[in-house]
Amino acid sequence: MKEIKIGLIGAGTVGSGVVNLIRKNSGIISNKTGIKISIKKVADTNQEVKNKLKLDDKIFTTNAEEIIEYKEIDIIVELIGGINPAKKYIIEGMKEGKHIVTANKALLSQYWEEIFSLANKYNKLIGFEASVAGGVPIIKSIREALIGNRILKIYGILNGTTNFILTKMEEEGYEFKQALEIAQKLGFAEKDPTYDIEGIDSAHKLQILSSLAFNSNIDFKKIYYEGISNIDLTDILYVNNLGYKIKLLAIAKIDKEEGVCECRVHPTIIPIANPLSSVRKEYNGILVEGDAVGVQIYYGKGAGSLPTASAIVSDIVDISNKILTNQSLNTYQLYKKNNELKIKEIKNIKCRYYLRFKTVDKPGVLAKISNILGQNNISISSVLQKETGQKVVPIVMLTHLALENDIINSLKLIDKLDVVKEKSKFIRIEDGI
Amino acid sequence: MKEIKIGLIGAGTVGSGVVNLIRKNSGIISNKTGIKISIKKVADTNQEVKNKLKLDDKIFTTNAEEIIEYKEIDIIVELIGGINPAKKYIIEGMKEGKHIVTANKALLSQYWEEIFSLANKYNKLIGFEASVAGGVPIIKSIREALIGNRILKIYGILNGTTNFILTKMEEEGYEFKQALEIAQKLGFAEKDPTYDIEGIDSAHKLQILSSLAFNSNIDFKKIYYEGISNIDLTDILYVNNLGYKIKLLAIAKIDKEEGVCECRVHPTIIPIANPLSSVRKEYNGILVEGDAVGVQIYYGKGAGSLPTASAIVSDIVDISNKILTNQSLNTYQLYKKNNELKIKEIKNIKCRYYLRFKTVDKPGVLAKISNILGQNNISISSVLQKETGQKVVPIVMLTHLALENDIINSLKLIDKLDVVKEKSKFIRIEDGI
Repeated sequence: MKEIKIGLIGAGTVGSGVVNLIRKNSGIISNKTGIKISIKKVADTNQEVKNKLKLDDKIFTTNAEEIIEYKEIDIIVELIGGINPAKKYIIEGMKEGKHIVTANKALLSQYWEEIFSLANKYNKLIGFEASVAGGVPIIKSIREALIGNRILKIYGILNGTTNFILTKMEEEGYEFKQALEIAQKLGFAEKDPTYDIEGIDSAHKLQILSSLAFNSNIDFKKIYYEGISNIDLTDILYVNNLGYKIKLLAIAKIDKEEGVCECRVHPTIIPIANPLSSVRKEYNGILVEGDAVGVQIYYGKGAGSLPTASAIVSDIVDISNKILTNQSLNTYQLYKKNNELKIKEIKNIKCRYYLRFKTVDKPGVLAKISNILGQNNISISSVLQKETGQKVVPIVMLTHLALENDIINSLKLIDKLDVVKEKSKFIRIEDGI
Repeated sequence: MKEIKIGLIGAGTVGSGVVNLIRKNSGIISNKTGIKISIKKVADTNQEVKNKLKLDDKIFTTNAEEIIEYKEIDIIVELIGGINPAKKYIIEGMKEGKHIVTANKALLSQYWEEIFSLANKYNKLIGFEASVAGGVPIIKSIREALIGNRILKIYGILNGTTNFILTKMEEEGYEFKQALEIAQKLGFAEKDPTYDIEGIDSAHKLQILSSLAFNSNIDFKKIYYEGISNIDLTDILYVNNLGYKIKLLAIAKIDKEEGVCECRVHPTIIPIANPLSSVRKEYNGILVEGDAVGVQIYYGKGAGSLPTASAIVSDIVDISNKILTNQSLNTYQLYKKNNELKIKEIKNIKCRYYLRFKTVDKPGVLAKISNILGQNNISISSVLQKETGQKVVPIVMLTHLALENDIINSLKLIDKLDVVKEKSKFIRIEDGI
């Protein structure tokens, strides 16, 4: 039996899960791998963690620097999240000869090039399976299982909070605000839910997946993101009626045009027949299309104490195998980047659109709107206008493929019409799987 | 760039896919890994392969022994399938210092202990991702991504042929024989479809998955299997009406009783809400439940030239990384087996059952059947008997949890009743996901 010594920085939900999982399943892990994972130090600023996890004085510390300086520690597991001091700990840890396992998507996505250059420089490994989709091995699958493929497309439901909220709205008829409150009560949403509901968390994860899939340093700042806080129940119901669902999708696609990709996060209308439609509640689902394997789907719990701890343990074992066999590590670095890859600006993407207008109910309104759309190269595939008996009525349209810039320009013109009584809305559609 | 030299034995559908995929994506693979995969020899008994794949004289041979003797070859990719001579080539190849990549589920599942003991003895690696579910990385996920978990359950749709046939029956109303003919015409079923339709292929794959999941040498001979050739369209329609679907499932479960597992393949009734219900046509889907990650699903193409080649390339790259870094290989062997694990006999399993009787339509029939069931500890959860106007009518029942042995005994007694006009049928139900 070979021992691998771990130092854990941050023992909140996920960190506690790691301690508990290693305690519970160390026998299974040893039996399958011949490795004994020893937790030598746990650092947390919250003193209560010590009793809660029954850690003795030699193991618990409130000072993370002790872990960085602890000579015998092989792997630092960083689970405090955020940029600072996590970044400092990771970099100093690598300098001190330690490998890193982290779930920190905010840090990796915004400092991707810096962090991995340093890992390269110090010849250290960084495991980050837990940073995307919790226990679902999407990073391992893209990096290793699909290595023979040109990855063409990723559609990911990567944020459990927003998927839970959208499911509540759709299945129980809540408006966004009520659904958010329920999610907060049940612990699926933070007190300040901005990162989740505005799509930032999904964009962090998309930066990681697309950088791996396209073997490029995708610039987080160029990823377009838009959350679900403007989604009305009424849109969900219209869309359901038309045979579609609304999901917050993280989308990465290689464009036919060489050297260009799309990376964007936004509420997306997908057909009910798309298997991602059936990813409900707090679950994550990722569709990956490779030129050899075709379409694959990975589904599971994308957050939570033990599912995320499962990914952390998987990274620990992978790195341990390499440490214990004296493997020189550089083949596992991201080898040679495709630095030419540019991200298309959102105004230049082409997709189908769902449009919703609120107009007065009088003759000629549909003609006025259709005219503007037609003049801007937008062709309509279906129209839904129900008799409501109200003075102001909604008109819903689905377009054929259109350029986003044309949509924006059209809606500006349409919103100036005196028959239009509210800012018009659009939601992007992705048909193909 | 480091070169890894490959010898390919068997260049049929999958072998040709491997040659084509390595040619097409060698740039991507090198960029991501720093490895150049060189195919040094291709052996096939069919001389036409040479022209079809445009292989020159130095590379093509009809004599597989040339590959085994070829000193510089690092990895032999065995894709001829079947037991002999594949077994001989694999064992001789390892003796000659070569690592092995294979898709041969028939061989591995029946000679699991022998093959892996020899791999251990010769310190050689065997990659077999392609042996189960084609391009879906279920083996890597169980062995590496879920290493921190106690695996509780696997439900797999592992055979594309039978899933295609069941989908055709359900969606287009064909009887089994017609659907099989269509599958054969489209190339989804072999001329002799026995291995697929009788569940043998799924059982091979289940031996592999359960041995990995439970870290045991599961004895293939003790895996119960039953195919779909006795499934009638009428059963599919009844089941659909009740909110269920019929799938050929490969099931592995750790029993609550320590040291016992269930490993069985048979047509299985699952609720429509189970995500495996939406695995259609030739696709594969595998549900895995781990004690830390909870329920996960892996979905994709389980067969075909390029999807399977994708798994082969993934294994080649994994082994190459280990060869090139001089990694001593034994941590990747299956370390220490849980040899105590026994497989429960099928007559001792407990599940819910779908029962279908054909009886004469007269008073007291239902009472007679219910009496026998009751006397054998079988409790009925629902009954469906439609007015047909015929003299012989079907009665369909779903039971609560029951012991299979009790079901068998009851049906024997029921089939002796003079009101019962046809051998009664049962299909097992799995509710939980």
